[in-house]
Amino acid sequence: MTSGSTALGHFRDRVDRALRDFIGQQRGVLLAAGEDLRPGAESIAGLLAGGKRLRPAFCYWGWRGAGGPDCPEIITAAAALELLHAGALVHDDLMDASDTRRGQPSLHRQFEARHAGRRWHGSAEAFGMGMAILLGDLLLCWTDEMFQASGLPADALRRGRPVLDRMRTEVFAGQYLDLLGQAAGDETLSGALRVVELKTTKYTIERPLHLGAALAGGSADPVGGDGPLAAAYTAYGLPLGVAFQLRDDILGVFGDPAQTGKPAGDDVREGKRTVLLAIARERATAGQAQVIDGYLGDPLLDETGTAEVRAAITATGAVAECERMIGRRVSEAIAALEGAPMTGEASEALAELAVAATARDG
Amino acid sequence: MTSGSTALGHFRDRVDRALRDFIGQQRGVLLAAGEDLRPGAESIAGLLAGGKRLRPAFCYWGWRGAGGPDCPEIITAAAALELLHAGALVHDDLMDASDTRRGQPSLHRQFEARHAGRRWHGSAEAFGMGMAILLGDLLLCWTDEMFQASGLPADALRRGRPVLDRMRTEVFAGQYLDLLGQAAGDETLSGALRVVELKTTKYTIERPLHLGAALAGGSADPVGGDGPLAAAYTAYGLPLGVAFQLRDDILGVFGDPAQTGKPAGDDVREGKRTVLLAIARERATAGQAQVIDGYLGDPLLDETGTAEVRAAITATGAVAECERMIGRRVSEAIAALEGAPMTGEASEALAELAVAATARDG
Repeated sequence: MTSGSTALGHFRDRVDRALRDFIGQQRGVLLAAGEDLRPGAESIAGLLAGGKRLRPAFCYWGWRGAGGPDCPEIITAAAALELLHAGALVHDDLMDASDTRRGQPSLHRQFEARHAGRRWHGSAEAFGMGMAILLGDLLLCWTDEMFQASGLPADALRRGRPVLDRMRTEVFAGQYLDLLGQAAGDETLSGALRVVELKTTKYTIERPLHLGAALAGGSADPVGGDGPLAAAYTAYGLPLGVAFQLRDDILGVFGDPAQTGKPAGDDVREGKRTVLLAIARERATAGQAQVIDGYLGDPLLDETGTAEVRAAITATGAVAECERMIGRRVSEAIAALEGAPMTGEASEALAELAVAATARDG
Repeated sequence: MTSGSTALGHFRDRVDRALRDFIGQQRGVLLAAGEDLRPGAESIAGLLAGGKRLRPAFCYWGWRGAGGPDCPEIITAAAALELLHAGALVHDDLMDASDTRRGQPSLHRQFEARHAGRRWHGSAEAFGMGMAILLGDLLLCWTDEMFQASGLPADALRRGRPVLDRMRTEVFAGQYLDLLGQAAGDETLSGALRVVELKTTKYTIERPLHLGAALAGGSADPVGGDGPLAAAYTAYGLPLGVAFQLRDDILGVFGDPAQTGKPAGDDVREGKRTVLLAIARERATAGQAQVIDGYLGDPLLDETGTAEVRAAITATGAVAECERMIGRRVSEAIAALEGAPMTGEASEALAELAVAATARDG
């Protein structure tokens, strides 16, 4: 994400501060329950120090676009989405058996290591799993606490809640379908697109925008997305969601660990069924396919293997094709903002966000 | 629980209906996201068909005791606590590797069996774990949705929220300390009591009562428990929580699977460190200790072993001692209701609830 972006510069600091304040309060509650909860509180604070704050940004500009004023309350309400996201990531890493998140060991690995280092009773793996489940649960529950205590008027919160509720049901439904598709070997494009729609497009972009609009009173039927503003947000969100997912696919193979917070080539190692890899395999020569399939899902993939598989994927032309698709989708998203019934400032900020959220530097 | 109890008879039906309505709506949302979500929706509905509705009952009578009128809205708000509880149970069963819940296979086992039966890709165990994590997450998120959409006035909800928030943080903190204590081999009584306080006393009794009182406007500082009514609820809740836990300990060894929904002798098989077992081991002769320790934590414990370990525990006198402790604590709880500033009807209902919640028939 371009740090010089005016739409995102100060915004990030304000979200960070709201999260630090909230987590600081919760830390007090946890330590009052028991001093032994300190490592849990610290792991949560460490995880929340990272992240791009994309969902809060879309929520905030959804609000501003609907005529909502800049104020601390909307920053706090929008920041609550980071708690939902952090809780989902903790559980996601556990399900994917991922070792790393935001450049740190994933939460289950942190507690597994703690158990092993102290030679405690029972299985270190089961202990790490239990702790990650519980800390993820805490984060999910805190989403509502931060949102409802944001200081926004009761009317605004009442309007926003159905969108927040729907957003959460959709993201877990999307993860369910993803897990099921992997297990059942669903290789259909429609199945993959349904998952992208629920897990990325709606969850990351469309629902946060609709949430902001609903909080500001800019939508008659926020969940249905009725009304010209909600429709414009959807028209912007749909292509941008696909572009965002494609960028994520590219970073999952080619990203720099310092930027992604994940090991290089992680998607190949995990054997993820991404659009980038689907295009690469479609276009691959027999030799290229052999290299790609040989490494896909190999848990021992090393630096040399990563370099080889990157070269093979690039040689198929799949990366260039994905870059073209990203460019087209971002342009479509920005075009959808033209003539939409929102303030000029919001329209400019959303155009900037579209570029920043899909930028090559991750 | 005595089904003839006037405090609980119709109440249970009303909570069941509120839950069925809510789950029916969510089922629609899930199926709109994908027809493949049907088994998930069905597992959730099956799990929620069971349960004693204790937390809703304490919340409801906490409200009535504070002068709140009987109305459908408080039933819905109170029923939301069953979603929290169901979510916590799904995750708890996963952490404990429990096979059974409410007489059915636990959720992770249901999906594990589904995966194995269909010969899907990857590990059936990992699939079951992932599905249980996601469905538990959904249930936790739905707690707020049902609570906030209960129809209670915005003022009431605003007063109740801090109690609901605190209750959730405490229950997950209690589980964290429990898991940590098991791993670190903490055998101290103070450690065990801290866990009972957070996981049972506060979560099952005191916080639901305080929540009801706060919703009704009967408490100036609901989380702090200030004021004579909140203090009376606490004085009732503390001994009752201990009695409830002791009953749970006895049922965990001696309970009938048809009533507990768990296999016979499950606590012995899992090697749970309960107060009942602590007293039994303290009083045991060398021969009795050999039998108890020999079976404790044995995953292969069968009917014969269960009968032997039951006989040994009974012979130590630990069961009779626990029954005496339960009787005393229930009397203390009921005595705390006398002269408390609540309606006579609520006082009678809470006395009945104290007996029903700790009754031998589970």
